[in-house]
Amino acid sequence: MPRVIVYVTLKPTLLDAQGRTVQTALHSLGFGEAGDVRLGKIIEMNVPEGDEAGIRARVVAMCDELLANPVTESYRIEVEA
Amino acid sequence: MPRVIVYVTLKPTLLDAQGRTVQTALHSLGFGEAGDVRLGKIIEMNVPEGDEAGIRARVVAMCDELLANPVTESYRIEVEA
Repeated sequence: MPRVIVYVTLKPTLLDAQGRTVQTALHSLGFGEAGDVRLGKIIEMNVPEGDEAGIRARVVAMCDELLANPVTESYRIEVEA
Repeated sequence: MPRVIVYVTLKPTLLDAQGRTVQTALHSLGFGEAGDVRLGKIIEMNVPEGDEAGIRARVVAMCDELLANPVTESYRIEVEA
């Protein structure tokens, strides 16, 4: 059963407020070398066997309808056999 | 300047309540094929040039102190030159 992994990240031009907060926390803990910290999310799922193009098309629809915000986020899809 | 990407995921033995919620939502939207949905997070950052082993050691410390919960989560580190 193929495993699909979707990586959702904020578009690079947008300020990542959460990432900025994490960066500040890292600096407070002594990790001053961390720069331009950005957060994203991973969604993994199993899907039934099928051709990869068909699976990708379905997952793109899932991203557009639920998993990602097309206004602020971009996503990358990996299909593992 | 190397870019570090940390992938944090819930340990496989734990029930992912958030993932279950997303799975239910996907099913409601007609994506009934999505199974065992699990969520995770990505943390990306820039770090100064250095040998990869040294960079990894610092990022492991960041994970243990802030980025991941060692009780419930596991993580994977990628260093891109």
